[in-house]
Amino acid sequence: MKRLEERISQDGQVLSEHVLKVDRFLNHQIDPVLMQEIGKEFAARFANDGITKIVTIESSGIAPAVMAGLYLNVQVVFARKRKSLTLSEDLLTASVHSFTKNETNEISISKKYVHKDDRVLIIDDFLANGQAALGLIDIVKQSGAHVTGIGIVIEKSFQDGAAKLRQLGIRVESLARIAALTNGKVTFTHKQVEELV
Amino acid sequence: MKRLEERISQDGQVLSEHVLKVDRFLNHQIDPVLMQEIGKEFAARFANDGITKIVTIESSGIAPAVMAGLYLNVQVVFARKRKSLTLSEDLLTASVHSFTKNETNEISISKKYVHKDDRVLIIDDFLANGQAALGLIDIVKQSGAHVTGIGIVIEKSFQDGAAKLRQLGIRVESLARIAALTNGKVTFTHKQVEELV
Repeated sequence: MKRLEERISQDGQVLSEHVLKVDRFLNHQIDPVLMQEIGKEFAARFANDGITKIVTIESSGIAPAVMAGLYLNVQVVFARKRKSLTLSEDLLTASVHSFTKNETNEISISKKYVHKDDRVLIIDDFLANGQAALGLIDIVKQSGAHVTGIGIVIEKSFQDGAAKLRQLGIRVESLARIAALTNGKVTFTHKQVEELV
Repeated sequence: MKRLEERISQDGQVLSEHVLKVDRFLNHQIDPVLMQEIGKEFAARFANDGITKIVTIESSGIAPAVMAGLYLNVQVVFARKRKSLTLSEDLLTASVHSFTKNETNEISISKKYVHKDDRVLIIDDFLANGQAALGLIDIVKQSGAHVTGIGIVIEKSFQDGAAKLRQLGIRVESLARIAALTNGKVTFTHKQVEELV
C-alpha cells in the first residue's frame, strides 16, 4: 500500500535494526484518514472471503480493525490484555509474550462474541515474531471458528512471524512489508510471498 | 442520540444500580457502523469550535475518537495506561483512579502530540465520577493546550462526573445520558444540562 509506505518513510523512526516507531500515526497518535484507507484496503483484500467477524487486540489494533469492520460490514472484537471486572464470564484465553515489552500477557475474549460458524479476519498493527497473532489464532480456534486470514498493517519481514503463519497455511495480507531497518532507514519489500517463505 | 439509546436499551446489561455493561457494541465487541454514527454526531456538535486535536484514553475510547477525528479531520492521540518501551521520551502524566476496576493507573501522553496552540476535544466512552476525564483534562492543561470540550458516549448522569466537569466551565456533550439503572432497566434523561448541575 503505497500511501502507507510513504507515511512510514516520512514519519516512522528507526530506533534500531529491529524497532520501528510509528507513534505519529498508528501507535499513539492516530491518523483517522490513513486508518480509513487501511480499512478500505483490508476490506478489498478480503472482500470475497465471507468474513463474518474481525478479531484484534488492544490498543493499537483497534483503529485499523474498526475501519476494516466498517467496510466489511462486520462486528469487531478486541482481545484484552488485562481482565476486566465487568468481563468475568466465560473467556477464551492465550498467553502472549512481547519481546519488545519483555512481558507476557494473558489475552482474552469473551466466548459470547466468536462462534463456531464465524469466519474470522484477525487484524493487528504489527507482525514481527508472530506471538500476538499466534495467540489470537489460538483463541479463535478455541471458539471453533475458522481463521480465514490475517491482516497486518506493518510486517517486519526480516523477522519470522510472517513465515510462521504462512507455514500454518494461514493467508497473511500485510499492507507494508519491511525488508530491513538499517542505517536509520526503512527498506520495503514487494517480493511475492512465495519467495519469502 | 436516539439510535444509541435504542442500542443501549436493546443490548446493554444492567449489572447493578451503578454498572451498565455495553460490551456487545462498545467495550469489547465494537459495532463499526454505530461508531461511525457516533463520530459524525460528535463532529456535528463540535463543528464550529475550531478543534485541532482529539485526546482519548485506551482502549474503549479509541473507536469513537477515531471516527470523530475522521469527520472533524483532526489527529487523535490516545493516552496510555501503561508505559511503553518505545514511548519513553517526554511524557505528560496524571493519576486516574477507576472505581469500577478498583485500581489507580498512571496515564500518559507524549508531549510531542499536544501543543499549546491546540484546541482539544477529549472523548471517552463513559462518564461516571469523572476521574478519567479529569486526568485527561490535567494532561491537556499541562501541555498548555485549550480543553475546548468533552464528548462522552454514555454519561451516567446519576453520578457526579458530569456536574463536576460542567462546574469547571467545561462543555460536556454526552450522546446518551442515563438517569437511573433500576430494576435491571435503563432510564434516560433529556433534561437541559442547566437543570442537572
